[in-house]
Amino acid sequence: MTTYFFWFDLLGVAVFAVSGTLAAWRNQMDGFGVIVLASVTAIGGGTLRDLILDVPVIWINNNSYFYAIFIAAVATILLVRNRLTIPNNTLQILDAIGLAFFVIMGTQKALDYGTSTLVAIMLGTMSGVCGGMIRDVLCREIPMVFRGELYAVTCLVGGGVYTSLLALGAGQLSAMLAGMSALLLLRLAAIKWQITIPVFGKHHNELNEP
Amino acid sequence: MTTYFFWFDLLGVAVFAVSGTLAAWRNQMDGFGVIVLASVTAIGGGTLRDLILDVPVIWINNNSYFYAIFIAAVATILLVRNRLTIPNNTLQILDAIGLAFFVIMGTQKALDYGTSTLVAIMLGTMSGVCGGMIRDVLCREIPMVFRGELYAVTCLVGGGVYTSLLALGAGQLSAMLAGMSALLLLRLAAIKWQITIPVFGKHHNELNEP
Amino acid sequence: MTTYFFWFDLLGVAVFAVSGTLAAWRNQMDGFGVIVLASVTAIGGGTLRDLILDVPVIWINNNSYFYAIFIAAVATILLVRNRLTIPNNTLQILDAIGLAFFVIMGTQKALDYGTSTLVAIMLGTMSGVCGGMIRDVLCREIPMVFRGELYAVTCLVGGGVYTSLLALGAGQLSAMLAGMSALLLLRLAAIKWQITIPVFGKHHNELNEP
Repeated sequence: MTTYFFWFDLLGVAVFAVSGTLAAWRNQMDGFGVIVLASVTAIGGGTLRDLILDVPVIWINNNSYFYAIFIAAVATILLVRNRLTIPNNTLQILDAIGLAFFVIMGTQKALDYGTSTLVAIMLGTMSGVCGGMIRDVLCREIPMVFRGELYAVTCLVGGGVYTSLLALGAGQLSAMLAGMSALLLLRLAAIKWQITIPVFGKHHNELNEP
Repeated sequence: MTTYFFWFDLLGVAVFAVSGTLAAWRNQMDGFGVIVLASVTAIGGGTLRDLILDVPVIWINNNSYFYAIFIAAVATILLVRNRLTIPNNTLQILDAIGLAFFVIMGTQKALDYGTSTLVAIMLGTMSGVCGGMIRDVLCREIPMVFRGELYAVTCLVGGGVYTSLLALGAGQLSAMLAGMSALLLLRLAAIKWQITIPVFGKHHNELNEP
Repeated sequence: MTTYFFWFDLLGVAVFAVSGTLAAWRNQMDGFGVIVLASVTAIGGGTLRDLILDVPVIWINNNSYFYAIFIAAVATILLVRNRLTIPNNTLQILDAIGLAFFVIMGTQKALDYGTSTLVAIMLGTMSGVCGGMIRDVLCREIPMVFRGELYAVTCLVGGGVYTSLLALGAGQLSAMLAGMSALLLLRLAAIKWQITIPVFGKHHNELNEP
């Protein structure tokens, strides 16, 4: 029945695995540490989501996720070794695609287990954001979620579109696709035109901790 | 019955949300990434505590926590935008207040689920410390818990005062308030007079990893 | 019966506590923050393993783990204060020993709860790697798992040796010891001769995010 759930999850995992592998490459990591970074990025968010929902972690009874990570990472390694010029913002775009899958899937899974709509959207955002957060922390970069361009807002909008359509009686699959598309388009537009929402004005850093 | 549990938790969440927002401001983060940092700081410790105790995560069935985070973050943003000079160690003081709530609440919750006193104090410390740890890691700062001034010690003392009073037959609410006050006063004193416990002498870094 | 499980776990915890304390010393941390870093390193991986397996966290009903951490940390502090020259790669070697215990114990615990062999090895690797990862992130260093020398590979090999021997009918304890030895020897050899598996060629960083 809900086979497409499985495939959406698996696609999100694969896309995040590619983004983790590219991050490893950018940081000149060698060896199988690449696989570790790819795995952490790919399953970090979903694992956290499932722990919080107190349901079996997605990959615990299913080897497919590790196969997907492995294939995605190896394919990326081969691609990168043979064709060294990779477009400037590939990592951001892949991250956006993974985000679209994970946020909507996470929102749906939370709804399935009876959370309120607000909590479901928050949990969806969390599961989408956390894998990439861990990736960026391990690479010692400022997490992408803070480097702006509507990152968190796109997650909230995507989750909002999805739950609103459900509330209006739309079919689940079409609501999912609409939510994912809304999230992805908004994020890609924000990357392209560098849209940001400044909430603090320019300031000198007057709050100095010792 | 234990309504004040809920309010202590909520207050701790709000205070940590303010501290997360201030940390975002210090790091010149713009956009709604602020909300993400506020949320992570505010619910990181409590979420970990509940996962480890294997009880439903505090915010999973209750929207209030997200309202509290949102209101705290927006109020902080408005305040900061209108009055740019914020006293030097505001962040540290707020962190101390949040710590007082979370450590005692965490200790109590662990006792409720039947852990030993030692494990309860450790779990309380963990739930108080981890939200701020994640905040500092995401901001790429040395976690406040390591920047000294009795940070971890105050948690252990607060938890110790609380559990000792309970063992001596004190009422729960008064024991809680006493534990929170002890923790807060010790931490504030340590910040004011920069009290530290050096356990290592000065040394040159002789343990160089390649 | 499975008393040696408990002792292996406790030994792994103690060794990782020492490695956390040494990392605190290298980073000139003072105060009881040392204990925090020692604890996080020592129980981070096992806690994550147990959360994912949805079993009670190892230390929740057992004070021994905290005693082990405390004794290990205090002994390390005393040793370091009295004898300031510590061999260059002590931290790496201790990390390798802790890794050997945790990876094999984690793999076994996962098998006990009915996961597939692949998932068990992955979970063993995770529980071995994550404590050290958190330690390195908190110290703002590049995680050791990415600084190469077969780090992740040794975990996979150790887990592979252990599960293969089990499948071939070997006794549990001897399979465990063999797996741990294989992991430890491979890692020590990799440290000594600086063996790495470069998967990416040398490259200029052409993938620049803005």
